[in-house]
Amino acid sequence: MDALVITEDHALVIDERPTPRPGPRDALVRVAGAGLNRADLLQRNGFYPAPPGVPADVPGMEFSGVVTSIGDAVTRVAPGDEVFGIVGGGAQAEYLVVHELHCAPVPTGFDLVTAGGVPEIFITAHDAMRTIAAVQPGERVLIHAVGSGVGTAALQLARVWGCPTVGTARTPDKLERALGLGLDHAVLAARELDPDALAQRILDEAGPCDVVVDLVGGEYVRADVAAAAPRGRIVLIGLVAGSRTSSFPVGAVLGKRLTLVGTTLRGRSVEEKAAATAAFTRDVVPLLAAGTVGPVMEATFPFDRAEEAYSLLASDTTFGKVVLTP
Amino acid sequence: MDALVITEDHALVIDERPTPRPGPRDALVRVAGAGLNRADLLQRNGFYPAPPGVPADVPGMEFSGVVTSIGDAVTRVAPGDEVFGIVGGGAQAEYLVVHELHCAPVPTGFDLVTAGGVPEIFITAHDAMRTIAAVQPGERVLIHAVGSGVGTAALQLARVWGCPTVGTARTPDKLERALGLGLDHAVLAARELDPDALAQRILDEAGPCDVVVDLVGGEYVRADVAAAAPRGRIVLIGLVAGSRTSSFPVGAVLGKRLTLVGTTLRGRSVEEKAAATAAFTRDVVPLLAAGTVGPVMEATFPFDRAEEAYSLLASDTTFGKVVLTP
Repeated sequence: MDALVITEDHALVIDERPTPRPGPRDALVRVAGAGLNRADLLQRNGFYPAPPGVPADVPGMEFSGVVTSIGDAVTRVAPGDEVFGIVGGGAQAEYLVVHELHCAPVPTGFDLVTAGGVPEIFITAHDAMRTIAAVQPGERVLIHAVGSGVGTAALQLARVWGCPTVGTARTPDKLERALGLGLDHAVLAARELDPDALAQRILDEAGPCDVVVDLVGGEYVRADVAAAAPRGRIVLIGLVAGSRTSSFPVGAVLGKRLTLVGTTLRGRSVEEKAAATAAFTRDVVPLLAAGTVGPVMEATFPFDRAEEAYSLLASDTTFGKVVLTP
Repeated sequence: MDALVITEDHALVIDERPTPRPGPRDALVRVAGAGLNRADLLQRNGFYPAPPGVPADVPGMEFSGVVTSIGDAVTRVAPGDEVFGIVGGGAQAEYLVVHELHCAPVPTGFDLVTAGGVPEIFITAHDAMRTIAAVQPGERVLIHAVGSGVGTAALQLARVWGCPTVGTARTPDKLERALGLGLDHAVLAARELDPDALAQRILDEAGPCDVVVDLVGGEYVRADVAAAAPRGRIVLIGLVAGSRTSSFPVGAVLGKRLTLVGTTLRGRSVEEKAAATAAFTRDVVPLLAAGTVGPVMEATFPFDRAEEAYSLLASDTTFGKVVLTP
């Protein structure tokens, strides 16, 4: 089969690889779409290596496709099923082996290539807001980098759950598009971040926030603490800021009794990924089927234009998902 | 009645106050013991004001004593009962009004004055480790300021729960005494804190820690993150360090999927304090009754030696509890 391969000098090439063979509880999936994520950019540049048991040099952390064969012990999926989900890596290939419990059913009639850009952002947003932060209807949700894939997914889910939303982005264009998706309060973040000033603008514009979805990291964490409501939950998902250290106002964290949780999907155990997939299937797939929420698509590229796709994502100008298709 | 009163110029005097009257769900308690806490020192110096509904100038956040009368709707306690618990303030007085759900039963035969030094430290330690961090048997627990009241309570509870313990303190004497209480690993913290070096010594001495009870704050938070095991829970309870800001390694918080929770007991709602008291009654009172855990007592002072008691606690040389008695 063909696969996108990261070479030792960080180039991306299409290379021939043996088609993987499913284990007893695996499905072999012929990939239709594989969403591109910031983690792929990091992996390509030698950071964020793939976890054990995953091809080290084939990127791709989410997939959609058709089951072509199954292991002996598989009971949840069957050949011909359209499925999507998250994997530790290797999705940017013609075929992919996936644990059956990591396969969610693609809703009937949903575009199968587009589906490849759904799982990572919606599982991440659902897991952060619902499973980790236990968001309640009416609670105010702050979403940094609201124009990112996870940001747009979090925004749509928060709306469905009856939560007013505040979003930040670093360009007016992304905020405009987020307002078009139903964002209640848009706050422009300066390129040169002043976290206290950003927090004050969030408080002035919208008020204290019960749940914070932080895809940026760095000094945004300081702004998160300042903008949080008493008993607020701050979920730290990403490190777009590059800076890996923030200043941390311990006094405010105690005084407001805040919870901060760092999370990643990639390194989770089989059982944890199965639980996240089950929650996604239960809570989000019906919303996708009904068209209540959906991925915002930026572009789809065939494998032989992967370089273009990676450059587009790295440019930080995209609003929606970039999906690769074999 | 007599009460300890904080004057406008931060002096402590014994003054006459009207004996408070119980509301419908309150008990009137004749105070036997009222443990002294760092929060009392802060309040005396004009910081950490009492929450609404609590005498603003009478310190004291924990009590033991005998119920002398009850409100019309009280069903859980009766006159003559020996009770102890936490309050928002006002315990350093001859009489105290307490919501019935905030009264735990003092075990039969337990010294009633000593009991006044039990609730704050054991409710705090239980709430932090069990309710917030959900500690499991066998998990390694790191306790900073292990020689403090909450530190010794946390150490004893962790032992009962089958958890290996690592403790830090800034004097060898406190570590010696903690080892005498069963501490497994003692780590001396330098007065001039180097958080990365402290974390490395904890890791070398004991290994990564699943639960951290941090009574110090400041740059200790950075050490907490570095010493935490994957999926570790860090409970931030105190600010002994004075410094209210830490540097915060966001990358490690994400990578290890850590949870940090800031907590205080004082500002909690009636319902939350009732829940914490019920959990203490269920899990800790039987251990106190059996003598499996108990308060480490430093000294007891009558009200007219309160100045001495406050100075002793402020000296940072105490190992156990200082309790005032009317």
